[in-house]
Amino acid sequence: MKTNAGRFFEDFAVGQEIIHAVPRTLSGGERALYHALYPACHAIHSSDEFARSSGLPEAPLDGLIGFHTVFGKTVPDISLNAVANLGYAEGRFLKPIYTGDTLRSVSEVIGVKQNSNGKSGVVWVRTTGLNQRDEAVLSYVRWVMVKKRDVGSEAPETVIPKLNPVVAADDLPVPKGLNFSGYDFALAGEPHRFADYEAGEIIDHVDGVTIEEAEHMMATRLWQNTAKVHFDTRQRPDGRRLIYGGHVMSLARALSFNGLANAQLIAAINGGSHANPCFAGDTVTAWSEVLDKAEVDAPGIGALRLRLVASKGGAAGALKDGAGKYNPDVLLDLDYWAFVPV
Amino acid sequence: MKTNAGRFFEDFAVGQEIIHAVPRTLSGGERALYHALYPACHAIHSSDEFARSSGLPEAPLDGLIGFHTVFGKTVPDISLNAVANLGYAEGRFLKPIYTGDTLRSVSEVIGVKQNSNGKSGVVWVRTTGLNQRDEAVLSYVRWVMVKKRDVGSEAPETVIPKLNPVVAADDLPVPKGLNFSGYDFALAGEPHRFADYEAGEIIDHVDGVTIEEAEHMMATRLWQNTAKVHFDTRQRPDGRRLIYGGHVMSLARALSFNGLANAQLIAAINGGSHANPCFAGDTVTAWSEVLDKAEVDAPGIGALRLRLVASKGGAAGALKDGAGKYNPDVLLDLDYWAFVPV
Amino acid sequence: MKTNAGRFFEDFAVGQEIIHAVPRTLSGGERALYHALYPACHAIHSSDEFARSSGLPEAPLDGLIGFHTVFGKTVPDISLNAVANLGYAEGRFLKPIYTGDTLRSVSEVIGVKQNSNGKSGVVWVRTTGLNQRDEAVLSYVRWVMVKKRDVGSEAPETVIPKLNPVVAADDLPVPKGLNFSGYDFALAGEPHRFADYEAGEIIDHVDGVTIEEAEHMMATRLWQNTAKVHFDTRQRPDGRRLIYGGHVMSLARALSFNGLANAQLIAAINGGSHANPCFAGDTVTAWSEVLDKAEVDAPGIGALRLRLVASKGGAAGALKDGAGKYNPDVLLDLDYWAFVPV
Repeated sequence: MKTNAGRFFEDFAVGQEIIHAVPRTLSGGERALYHALYPACHAIHSSDEFARSSGLPEAPLDGLIGFHTVFGKTVPDISLNAVANLGYAEGRFLKPIYTGDTLRSVSEVIGVKQNSNGKSGVVWVRTTGLNQRDEAVLSYVRWVMVKKRDVGSEAPETVIPKLNPVVAADDLPVPKGLNFSGYDFALAGEPHRFADYEAGEIIDHVDGVTIEEAEHMMATRLWQNTAKVHFDTRQRPDGRRLIYGGHVMSLARALSFNGLANAQLIAAINGGSHANPCFAGDTVTAWSEVLDKAEVDAPGIGALRLRLVASKGGAAGALKDGAGKYNPDVLLDLDYWAFVPV
Repeated sequence: MKTNAGRFFEDFAVGQEIIHAVPRTLSGGERALYHALYPACHAIHSSDEFARSSGLPEAPLDGLIGFHTVFGKTVPDISLNAVANLGYAEGRFLKPIYTGDTLRSVSEVIGVKQNSNGKSGVVWVRTTGLNQRDEAVLSYVRWVMVKKRDVGSEAPETVIPKLNPVVAADDLPVPKGLNFSGYDFALAGEPHRFADYEAGEIIDHVDGVTIEEAEHMMATRLWQNTAKVHFDTRQRPDGRRLIYGGHVMSLARALSFNGLANAQLIAAINGGSHANPCFAGDTVTAWSEVLDKAEVDAPGIGALRLRLVASKGGAAGALKDGAGKYNPDVLLDLDYWAFVPV
Repeated sequence: MKTNAGRFFEDFAVGQEIIHAVPRTLSGGERALYHALYPACHAIHSSDEFARSSGLPEAPLDGLIGFHTVFGKTVPDISLNAVANLGYAEGRFLKPIYTGDTLRSVSEVIGVKQNSNGKSGVVWVRTTGLNQRDEAVLSYVRWVMVKKRDVGSEAPETVIPKLNPVVAADDLPVPKGLNFSGYDFALAGEPHRFADYEAGEIIDHVDGVTIEEAEHMMATRLWQNTAKVHFDTRQRPDGRRLIYGGHVMSLARALSFNGLANAQLIAAINGGSHANPCFAGDTVTAWSEVLDKAEVDAPGIGALRLRLVASKGGAAGALKDGAGKYNPDVLLDLDYWAFVPV
């Protein structure tokens, strides 16, 4: 067999390093497509001039372009036989990514735990995206449930990594030179600054997008994510193509511009759940909750910790039922830090 | 409320200047997407070499890329609560736009008139697109009908701007250096020159395109146009997504290549009506009428004034009924000037 | 009539040179769109760094981007009145194409043969793509069946060109500087090298893609291919849009990454048949057969001759029935050479 059958649970061992294939050079083409696929309007990613006035050499690519690119490379090695994508932690956007950069991904297996049914197990990996200068541009932990090749194979020693529930504010990586002292609120689109947001505040982002098959497939392909279930109607009994969770993430983040236009740069991902599957025809809306605020040691810059929720039209603020189960219309529950002007 | 509720009729006053948000840097990515979304073939926008042989430093972006980008920025401020987009006038393409340019938009309110029903009013704005050197790259007047916030609020003094029905030939902005003396008709695709077109002539552009939801949404998003009705099936009682009028404009202009391949650059927009709504599934065809011709003080260059009509398959030349009402299949009636080789 | 009615059979004469219109400058935008439209993962086209480590100045555009661009320009002149696209031969990818290159196309008529029914005839053309330095970047022969304008017109003298059934291994154009001596199999995605492939071997590429209308239309437009039947539901009695054969070609080639990740560069096209029409909704899968192998006079490089078959989910290896007729699920049967590391 020359084709890739993917790794099964038995193929993962703590300490293993996995070099993922197919490095990728990003250009203005990827940036333009990101704007065509998502209603992305954050000024620092949209305008070289705005980025320069914020101390950067030119507009960095949206942090999620980096995330999807790095993530996509891991799919053939990590999640081709995954039953479920269980969570994210300790995601940090370490360096801005610019057009012309070439990204590749490496992962380290940091945890394994066989399920009690003996049919599958959970694998934790820490994935790092590197640019052409071998600088880490982003890093995150993800854990997935993976099928066993052989139900009878012996369970490995359980190792569950200790993960921070939240990236500490002191660990937020501020891009070198970033400076919001001369921030232009009119060009950014909203007057709200750090001081205007309070923990507990809920923001309904109002806008909605009805998703088409062609759009989510183009997006997912753009990141060279080859998971069959997104592209091939023969992969699920219901004949539907499951939408890549990252597509919903980017869509929700773009929709959050309306109310969080000044949450310019994603600094960290603390955690995230793809609460329910998303399919073409769904109309996705988004709301945010301010979870925390932190001062940052950089000129004019503060950080907001935000919960970003994507749903199929559910009310802002509605998330879980009394038993702690996600409402059926909730698609994504993402916990992240963003840099805002003070 | 941190989200943008848009301006209502009462929020506009003659003389007001509105700085629109989110500057945008354009790249080869936007050019490529324009070619993927529209059957655009005009050689001067397709080939750096052809543009150089015409005296320009490289291929300028299609004038309508500039128009849509500048227009898109105005939506959150001007037309979020618009009931109808009533017209355009005095559109002038002042400078070519090149990849790497960053565009932003400003508008001045030049007219207001409350409707007799007291529920809405008409607002006229003159919008200017500026590049990173603060040079005006295009300018146009548009008027929209906007809802009142409060039906009981007092009507402002009526001001109706005096607008030229047609941009005078002497006012057509010829890009610096443009020279069609050595024009290559074979590479451009057609032999027809200035002298071959006569006022009154009707050209049936023959080709048609059946529109998909994914295409018009990607196009409209690419210009950061956030009008809800284009993206969200919950916005209209019939559950259909209304296609951005500018999408039909670009589609019709691209289709007009077949018969007007040498109408290389749009110089001005004299007026335009979105006669009927367009929806996915419609098959759009186009025809043109030569309205006028003018000599231009630039080497090898003339100007044609053209009516460009997009319809859902209607016959070339068929526009209005006896009462002066647009036929139900007519989507767009655009009056513009284009530069052609003499 | 100012629109292009296309050439009929009578308009072709052996020896004729046809200069095709609309040169096209390619950028990172076209590369990004190729990745969005096809699951393309070959490392040399994806990463500037990988290309540099292989002796090239940067990542060349996928050879099929060049092919489609050059082919698209020929449509208005060669195949607007074509009844069928009959075959390809002697396709050679003469020079890598890089972002910033401007391509144009010229064709020479090398054969004509009227059909016995007197209603149509076969035309053979050799098409060459040229870059902005007038260097030939690719060349191929294609033959099409074209309608006659007038059934009564006299038949021309029959000229059937002598075509090589296979491009000889010695004639495969190796890009200057290409060197696979330091090839990184981990980054390329698979360990299989020249020695691991044997003539007769069948590779099932496993993955599948269900095609959407928006995708194939965007792809086809991107190459400025204006054949009506791909875009306009009024063109066929069944109201379906026929998918451009080249779309299936690129899709199948991209799918072949899984099993042929190291078949990095297409060197030549020996032949190809669009066995059955493809429509939106079809789920396309692919398989390859190794037809031949050849040593190449370049460091670390060998060549595989491959049959690439796209089908609507047919079994790997299944191609024709006992009578030599393609199975109804077969869409494409392409015979090509690719460069691989030894």
